[in-house]
Amino acid sequence: MSAFSRFTPLVSALPSTVPFVGPEAIERQRNLQVKARIGANENGFGPAPSVLAAMREQAGDIWKYNDPENYALKQALAAHLGTSASNIAIGGGIDELLGQIVRLVIDPGLPVVTSLGGYPTFNFHVAGFGGRLVTVPYRQDREDLGGLLDAVKRENAPLVYFANPDNPMGSWWDADEVVAFAKAIPETTLLVLDEAYSETGPASSLPSIASLIDRPNIIRTRTFSKAYGLAGARVGYAISTPDTATAFDKIRNHFGMNRLATVAALAALEDQAYLNEVVGNIHAARDRIAGIATANGLQPLASATNFVAIDAGRDGIYAKAIVDGLMQHGVFIRMPGVAPLNRCIRVSVGPEADMALFEEALPLVLKSLG
Amino acid sequence: MSAFSRFTPLVSALPSTVPFVGPEAIERQRNLQVKARIGANENGFGPAPSVLAAMREQAGDIWKYNDPENYALKQALAAHLGTSASNIAIGGGIDELLGQIVRLVIDPGLPVVTSLGGYPTFNFHVAGFGGRLVTVPYRQDREDLGGLLDAVKRENAPLVYFANPDNPMGSWWDADEVVAFAKAIPETTLLVLDEAYSETGPASSLPSIASLIDRPNIIRTRTFSKAYGLAGARVGYAISTPDTATAFDKIRNHFGMNRLATVAALAALEDQAYLNEVVGNIHAARDRIAGIATANGLQPLASATNFVAIDAGRDGIYAKAIVDGLMQHGVFIRMPGVAPLNRCIRVSVGPEADMALFEEALPLVLKSLG
Repeated sequence: MSAFSRFTPLVSALPSTVPFVGPEAIERQRNLQVKARIGANENGFGPAPSVLAAMREQAGDIWKYNDPENYALKQALAAHLGTSASNIAIGGGIDELLGQIVRLVIDPGLPVVTSLGGYPTFNFHVAGFGGRLVTVPYRQDREDLGGLLDAVKRENAPLVYFANPDNPMGSWWDADEVVAFAKAIPETTLLVLDEAYSETGPASSLPSIASLIDRPNIIRTRTFSKAYGLAGARVGYAISTPDTATAFDKIRNHFGMNRLATVAALAALEDQAYLNEVVGNIHAARDRIAGIATANGLQPLASATNFVAIDAGRDGIYAKAIVDGLMQHGVFIRMPGVAPLNRCIRVSVGPEADMALFEEALPLVLKSLG
Repeated sequence: MSAFSRFTPLVSALPSTVPFVGPEAIERQRNLQVKARIGANENGFGPAPSVLAAMREQAGDIWKYNDPENYALKQALAAHLGTSASNIAIGGGIDELLGQIVRLVIDPGLPVVTSLGGYPTFNFHVAGFGGRLVTVPYRQDREDLGGLLDAVKRENAPLVYFANPDNPMGSWWDADEVVAFAKAIPETTLLVLDEAYSETGPASSLPSIASLIDRPNIIRTRTFSKAYGLAGARVGYAISTPDTATAFDKIRNHFGMNRLATVAALAALEDQAYLNEVVGNIHAARDRIAGIATANGLQPLASATNFVAIDAGRDGIYAKAIVDGLMQHGVFIRMPGVAPLNRCIRVSVGPEADMALFEEALPLVLKSLG
């Protein structure tokens, strides 16, 4: 049975197999059960009790579409960030916003700059709109600001992606360096400054909202999926100038947001005390992961995120064997996709029960690998 | 402050203002409060208690991303429909699926056939990908099958949209006629057969799954937003051949589904007894709406959906005055956008309290309009 014969040439050329393999798929494929879900940079500490209470209380409203203007959430975010609601666009997680951003800027063949080994979902969207990826290697496990800027200029690229703090390495740049980089980007290039992990990094790593809010060519993306513990809700937001933020309205799915996700995000923003508590838990869990790595002779990298990259000391084949071996014990983790980053494994934070399972399984796996 | 200077030419040419005005926006703009929310074809009877219970019970899992393969939901839908999971694609409501379908097929300038006054969100997506809308007028308040087919052939259109039952008129064709139309569509044209209201129409209006499942150029779309009462959850699905269904994987946002929305959809499918009960309530509410119309000298149209189009007997200006006047009483309804359909108002079903508010307000509004 063949497919419809007249998809666009671009679509026809895209691969049907995609790199997105969730833990559920691994469970099905390998007939294993995930006991410690610490591979997808989720937040196993979960959202605030106040958030769950709000969702349960308002579940009965799920028959109503969400407000397509996302008025209340924009207002709340504006108050939280100290900016205007007109500076904000709402989407179904940063992933959806990234797809929209690529669509806004990229026609087939146009160059898009990102780091080699950077966020795969961004690359997926670039491919999906026919963009040509131009990749810049990491330097000392950080995204290479100078290299990214050079590539942007050399290619006259309309779009560049940079995450701070970074996934998959957990590294970061200080705010001053980020701002200098962002301001050096030509105004004919749109910079996506992905700040999915902004809440978990050192304060010194986060540029103020004011520092970049006047630049039409900068979009900062943030999410409720990480520190706020709402990955399954799908709420992200973009911060830019009002006119750039308005561009999303031209193409977004206006009735696309889940109503209870909005309820959850509003409640989460309200409960900053819980956020602070969780961020403390995340810091402690990072230390716990680092301690387990060290105790097993592996080298943890410093992290500003909700995960820790651990240098396993050999190549990608060895790191992959650790990832696969841990899954045999029900410990789901992931690893970077390209060399030399793929000498590392990547372990997300989680409650102590998850950490204990990791601690128990890692030496067994390393021993079995020899 | 200007926007980023280098959006694609297509995006730059799109309007920033969009036709999606939710009831919340009307409340804000007019400083009114919606008391009867019967304008957006939602289902005020709401989802099953078993669905709400499942959502509340599993709310605590919201920190986890949803399974990107939607395995469980595809399996459940396949069992429900009597087909294979490989025939199904999942999306964030039909709206999101329509955007993906347009993206799969339409390059700028290509013709897309739909009915004049048909679903605006489809038209929005067509414009967003640069398609050229070719519209066919309704005939006797139904979509014109012969006219749509003629337009498809005349234009050699790669894409045509047809809803059965239809929004905004509530009309329908019998299954035999739909199947004959669908099979007459050239195989180089993708037919979107939108069956958002499939559960509320007469059994005779719904083609069997088997009747069209072998056609790579037919995608049937369905939703949990209407009869299942989950509009705010955003779960829809597409049914086609496995190879056509797989095409969505090339471009969709794989981690885009809300986890609790999946929980809700699974629970809703399980509770067919409640669905039957609600469909009965919807039928009764349609009769109630029709009775109110008739009592006020207006002409209700027969409906296979969860709303009733009511011929107000004059032009669009008069119908608009009724819509605006009802909102003064807190009764939110909508109306078709183009003539001659816009001689009608469109009232969604709802619980008796909503019906009573409509019954009370309508004669007052008509009297004030004279």
